[in-house]
Parts: sequence; structure tokens; C-alpha cells
Amino acid sequence: MKFTTFLHNGQARLGLVDGNDVIDLNTAQPQVPADMRAALLKGVDLAAAGKAALAGPAPRLKLDSLKLAPLVPEPGKVICLGLNYFDHAKEGGRDKPDYPWFFLRGASSLIAHRDIGRVPSVSVKFDYEAELAVVIGTRVPRHTRQATALAHVFGYACFNDMSVRDYQKKTPQWTIGKNFDDTGAFGPLLVTADELPPGATGLKIQGRLNGQVMQDANTSDMIFSVAETIELLADVLTLEPGDVIVMGTPAGVGQARTPPVWMKAGDVYEVEIERVGLLSNPIANEIL
Amino acid sequence: MKFTTFLHNGQARLGLVDGNDVIDLNTAQPQVPADMRAALLKGVDLAAAGKAALAGPAPRLKLDSLKLAPLVPEPGKVICLGLNYFDHAKEGGRDKPDYPWFFLRGASSLIAHRDIGRVPSVSVKFDYEAELAVVIGTRVPRHTRQATALAHVFGYACFNDMSVRDYQKKTPQWTIGKNFDDTGAFGPLLVTADELPPGATGLKIQGRLNGQVMQDANTSDMIFSVAETIELLADVLTLEPGDVIVMGTPAGVGQARTPPVWMKAGDVYEVEIERVGLLSNPIANEIL
Repeated sequence: MKFTTFLHNGQARLGLVDGNDVIDLNTAQPQVPADMRAALLKGVDLAAAGKAALAGPAPRLKLDSLKLAPLVPEPGKVICLGLNYFDHAKEGGRDKPDYPWFFLRGASSLIAHRDIGRVPSVSVKFDYEAELAVVIGTRVPRHTRQATALAHVFGYACFNDMSVRDYQKKTPQWTIGKNFDDTGAFGPLLVTADELPPGATGLKIQGRLNGQVMQDANTSDMIFSVAETIELLADVLTLEPGDVIVMGTPAGVGQARTPPVWMKAGDVYEVEIERVGLLSNPIANEIL
Repeated sequence: MKFTTFLHNGQARLGLVDGNDVIDLNTAQPQVPADMRAALLKGVDLAAAGKAALAGPAPRLKLDSLKLAPLVPEPGKVICLGLNYFDHAKEGGRDKPDYPWFFLRGASSLIAHRDIGRVPSVSVKFDYEAELAVVIGTRVPRHTRQATALAHVFGYACFNDMSVRDYQKKTPQWTIGKNFDDTGAFGPLLVTADELPPGATGLKIQGRLNGQVMQDANTSDMIFSVAETIELLADVLTLEPGDVIVMGTPAGVGQARTPPVWMKAGDVYEVEIERVGLLSNPIANEIL
């Protein structure tokens, strides 16, 4: 099953995706909150609600005609991994990590499919990072182990963890370079976990700048798998429904190239993950 | 004016504090949302609402009898500064930073005044950090400068940025050691900005472990002031109403002592900031 989040009268609404059709799930099934996180927090059986909506008379919207929102518009947490593909760690001059380099993104950095990624006025070192995102479906109890971790995953999506490299490196804490407004592209589709291999392994992941392949890898290349990452996080904190984990990027980023490649106004970056979807964002300058 | 957030029937509710009395502001003034962040996002004039509530017949609760919630229970962002007091940077073997070491806390790490700070089962290196917290009242436009930055501050509060030091140092990214459940103590009171010196400068800040002074400094010792921090953040992102900035801790932390001092079950850590309040949290082990 596939879901999206679209804007209607300024409100983000959960949509069930059926080919190129979208059903407003809250309209079709009023017991389902209109927001994905709220629906997950309420414990709604979205598979059952989706099935009922598909069988019913709900009006269908055209996916291509909708303005989308970030897939989870306001997640409780967006936890990102750095250096989770060995080739990417190497291109940055780093060793293979023995623990994930975790950092957080704030919801205010998120944008949707087709939204503009903004080159900030304070930097030109604007880089792309194609990544797999994981959306948590049910509360993950502390000290959950790998064996049961994946049962808590609602689904998977594409993410572009756009990074402002000079800010990322102003201090050893990367956070600020990962939290510029309009830099965390997330969507367009969530594919539920049951439709993909466990942990979304074995999927081709590609990043393309103006159609040219810049990043080309496989999710099986991740150092820390989705299940292992959830286990490590569960030692520390409670993952809640609607929380997001962004699994790190493979080699090929702009800063590691000679000369470096920075995204600039007029560019388009696409993140494509096999069986998960295609996330595309035009790039423009910040509006001052 | 002083505000707090207390729990009633499991719901966090904004309270106006009058001495040891608390008025449920949403009960007294129904146009005010019951949640502080929601009230700020709606742009409610909380000073006027508070004044009207004080003059009216609203029932008064006793502050000491209430179970509190984190002052802003679910902020959009909690942005923390590391190394913002030079003496603390030095005790950690660091130079004076020329840019703040920013990291984020997730809302799931927050606790209230008198809530238990939990020593996690995976570590004994559980440290305290007395800090000044800033609550944003109105949206801070990008590229706001210092001169007007403080106009966006709603008020100030105490924070204990409890840190799990071995996790903080597992990789160069401190984030994971700052995001354990039950480690970000926040409250009990918000004192509105008009009642304090601009930027809450010149205030004594102290941290006490079981009554013994461990941290003793003045908010004027901060390297980056509140206004300068807001200016630096406004280069990067939009600060929204209800966002929180946690301004870093002075010298005296447990890890810098010989031998190191770690908080353990049975301890109590107090953060006291002159004219802002006293935040006290007992420490106990994580419940497995």
C-alpha cells in the first residue's frame, strides 16, 4: 500500500495512493485523522482503512495535480545517520564507523516532492544526499532488539538530506549545516513495509543532478541496517509513531568531487529508490 | 508575568503563576489554547489574557500541589549550544569557540520540574548541565539581526541538559548522548522577557548536587549572547513560536572533575537562575 501527504486549503492531508489516483483518507474514512502522524499515534489500522477506502465510492484526485507536503509534515523526531555507506565515509576521508553518527533535523527544514530546495544566501556549498527514510508506525519500547525491530516500521520513502557544507563543518557538530530551511526533501510516497524486502534491503538507490547519475548504490551497502539502527536507538530513547529515521547517503556527493559540485539555481536533484519512488526537487536561491 | 505548564487529566495545560497560585489560563480565558506552544502559534496576547485572568474570578490552584509538564511540552525545535561558557570549554580541553556548537534535542527527551532524571541502563556516565532556556514567542524572520532579536523572545526558564557522556563521545556528533529519554529537565516557570534584563544577562546561575554547589556562574559569562545566538540561527532557519534555545552550561560538570562525579540513584540536582526560578530533579535508575 502507498500513502502520500498533500495540501488542501493549506492543510496537510493523508492520501492513499492507487496508481495515479489519490483518495483523501480522512474524507473516505472519517475515523482516520487527516494527518499521518496523528493517524499513527491514534493507532488506526491504516491497512484496513485503506482497503475500505479503495473499495468505497470516495472521490479520486490525480496525484500529479496535487501540491504535496513533506510526507510526515511535523514528525516528533527526524533522526539522521551520517557515514552509513562505507564508500561515502571513505570519500570524506573517514573510517568505517563502529557506531552511527546520529544527528537530528527539525521539522522546519522539511520540504515536499517538487518543492524548491533553497541555496541559502550565506553559502554556495549546497550539496545533495540521496537517502532512504524510515517512518515508524508503532511505539518502539526501550531495548527492543533487532529481531523484532522491523515490526514497528510503517514504511519507507525517499529523502534528500541537502547539506550546507561550510556550516556543517563550522564546528564538529554537523547539526546546523543540516537544518537550513527548505533542505530536507521527503516523499512523495510512503511504501508500506509489507511491500518491500525486510528493512528495505537490496534496493537500488540513485541520486541524479540534472539527469546525470551522481550517486548509485544499493541499500544493502548500508553499514547499519534499519533493524540494527532501531536497536541502537532503543538503547537510548523511545521511538514514537511518526518518527523518521534517515539512513545516510552513498558515495558521490558534491563536496567529495574534484572540483567540488555544488547545487545552484536552475538545477534539479532526483532521488530514486527501487520500488519506493522518485523524489525530485528544483533548486533555487533563497528569497531575500 | 510568570507561566507554567501543568498536567490535568493527562493533558498539559498552560498556567498563569501568581505567587504560589496557578490559574488555568484556558479555563479563565477560553480563547487561549491550553498548550503554550499552540497559544504562541495562534498569536494570543498572553500578557493581556494573563492580566484579565488575574482580575477575574478564575479558580486558583496551588503550584506546589500540581504535577508539572515540561514547560513547552512539544516544542517544534529545541536547539542547544555547547561550550558557551569559556570556563566550561576550558575544563573540557577546548578552545573558545568562534561559532556555537549547536545540536538538537527531541521533545521525547524532556521532563518537568520534580520529574525523575533517569540514569540509563547502558551507562553510568550521567552528568548534569545547568542552563538558561529561551522560549521564542513570535516567528523570527530569516536574517533578523541582534538589534531586534530579543523582541521575539517570550521568556526565560531553567534547564538541566543531562548528558550521557560516553554516548556523547561515541562519535564526534554529541546528539545521541543528549537525547536519552528523561534527561532534558525544563521548567518549572517561564518568566516573561519584560521582567528580566535584556537577554537575561547578569543573572547568577547555579547547579547544586544534593545541595552542594557544583556550578556557579553568571549568565553574562556566556560567549554567545541570546541576541547573537538568534542572529546566527536566523542566518540558517526560521525560529517559530514555542521553539526553545538552550544556552549552554558553565564550568563544574561532573566529567571534568577528578575523580569524575556521575549522578546516581538517590541524588537530586537543582538548577537555580536568579529571578528565573529553581528547577529540581531527583535521579533514579531507568526502569527495565
